[in-house]
Amino acid sequence: MWISELSRRTDVPVATIKYYLREGLLPPGEAAGATRAVYDDSHERRLRLIRALVTSGGLSLAAVREVLDALAHSERGMHYVLGTSHEALTPKAPQPTPGSRERVDALMAELGWQVYDDAPMRDVLASALDAMDAVGIELPNDVLTAYAEAAGRIGAAEVDALPDGDPAELVERAAVVTVLGEPVLLALRRLAQESASARRYLGDSWQPGPAPDDVPPPSPA
Amino acid sequence: MWISELSRRTDVPVATIKYYLREGLLPPGEAAGATRAVYDDSHERRLRLIRALVTSGGLSLAAVREVLDALAHSERGMHYVLGTSHEALTPKAPQPTPGSRERVDALMAELGWQVYDDAPMRDVLASALDAMDAVGIELPNDVLTAYAEAAGRIGAAEVDALPDGDPAELVERAAVVTVLGEPVLLALRRLAQESASARRYLGDSWQPGPAPDDVPPPSPA
Repeated sequence: MWISELSRRTDVPVATIKYYLREGLLPPGEAAGATRAVYDDSHERRLRLIRALVTSGGLSLAAVREVLDALAHSERGMHYVLGTSHEALTPKAPQPTPGSRERVDALMAELGWQVYDDAPMRDVLASALDAMDAVGIELPNDVLTAYAEAAGRIGAAEVDALPDGDPAELVERAAVVTVLGEPVLLALRRLAQESASARRYLGDSWQPGPAPDDVPPPSPA
Repeated sequence: MWISELSRRTDVPVATIKYYLREGLLPPGEAAGATRAVYDDSHERRLRLIRALVTSGGLSLAAVREVLDALAHSERGMHYVLGTSHEALTPKAPQPTPGSRERVDALMAELGWQVYDDAPMRDVLASALDAMDAVGIELPNDVLTAYAEAAGRIGAAEVDALPDGDPAELVERAAVVTVLGEPVLLALRRLAQESASARRYLGDSWQPGPAPDDVPPPSPA
C-alpha cells in the first residue's frame, strides 16, 4: 500500500509516519520508483504498536525505541521483551527511604514473587509507601497484605490471558492492558469501598436504587 | 495558640491560613483583642484535613467545601459523609457508551455490591472500559472478574481498617488512603505482572538476584 493508505488505516497523519521513518522507528517501505515506497501489513502493525505506546502509555519516542529494540531481540524470550516494555512504562521514582525499601523486599520474599532484586518497580512501591508515611498514615500491614494478594491474582490473570503468537502483538497488548487497565482497577476499588462502607455503616438498612435525595442544604459558608 | 504557632505546627503558611479563614473553610478563632485571635486543636485538625484533601487528593477548594459541608452533617451517618468525600475525589468521567454502562451495571448486580444506581463511579468504570475498547483491546470477562474480586477484597480490607471515632479524622484517613493507596496498588500490580511473566516465560530457569546483565546492545537506529 502507499503511505496515504497506511495513514488512512492507522489514523496516523502522513507527516507523523514520515517522521517515524526518518527516526528509524518504522522500517523503510519497498522502493517503487524514485520517490514512492510500498508498505505492507508489518508496517501497519508496527505503527499501531508505536501509537499504542505513545498515546495509551504516554511513552516518549526514546522509550518507544527501547521497546522496539527489545522486540528486535525477541530471541531472548518474552520475559525479557515484556520486562523492557514494562520498564519503559515505569515512571522514575524518587529514591525511597531504606525502611520502605526493606519493607518491600521483605514483602516480595514473603510472597515468593519472582521479581529481580534490582527491578525499578521495587523502588516505585517503596516511594508510594513513603508518601503515605509523609502524611502520617502508615498503611497497616494487613491492608498492605490484602493489596498484595489481590494484586497477585490480578497480575496472574492478566499474564495468563496474554495470547501466544507474534511478539509485537503481545507487547502491544501487554502495554495497553497494563496502562489502560489501571483506571479500570482503580474505579473498581472505589466501587468496592462504597459497597464496603454501605455494609459497615448502613448494614441492613441499605436499599438498592438511586442514592436517597434527602440531602441537607449546604451549610452557610 | 496564635496563628503563627498554628502555621508552625501544620506547616501551612500564615497567608494561606488567613485565606482559608476568609473563605470560611476554617472557623474563626476566639478574639483576643482587636486584631488577634486564639486557635485551638480543632483548628489544627481542620487545617490538617484541608491540606490532606488539597495536597494528597488534589481537590479544589470548592470540592473541599463539599467535604466540610458533609462533615457538618455527620448526623446523617458515616456512609453519607464518606460518600460525599469520595464523590469530591472522583474526577468527572466522559459520558460512557450504553454498552459499557450496561456491562458495569451487570457486574455490580452479579457481585451483589451495595452501590447506588446513580453512583458517579459507575460511569467512571464504564468510561475506562470504553478507553480499552477504543484501542481494540476488550478486557476479557475473566480478567474483569479477577479485577473485581480483587478490588472487592481491597475495599473491604480498607473500610474495615478505618478506626471508629471522630468523623473528621475518619474522613481524613479515608481520603488519604483512597488517594495515596492508588500508587501502592498499581506498583504491586506491576510487580505481580513481572512475577507472573517470569513464571510463564522462564519457569524453573528463573533465578533470584539482580536481572541478568547479558543485555544485547541496542539495535542500530
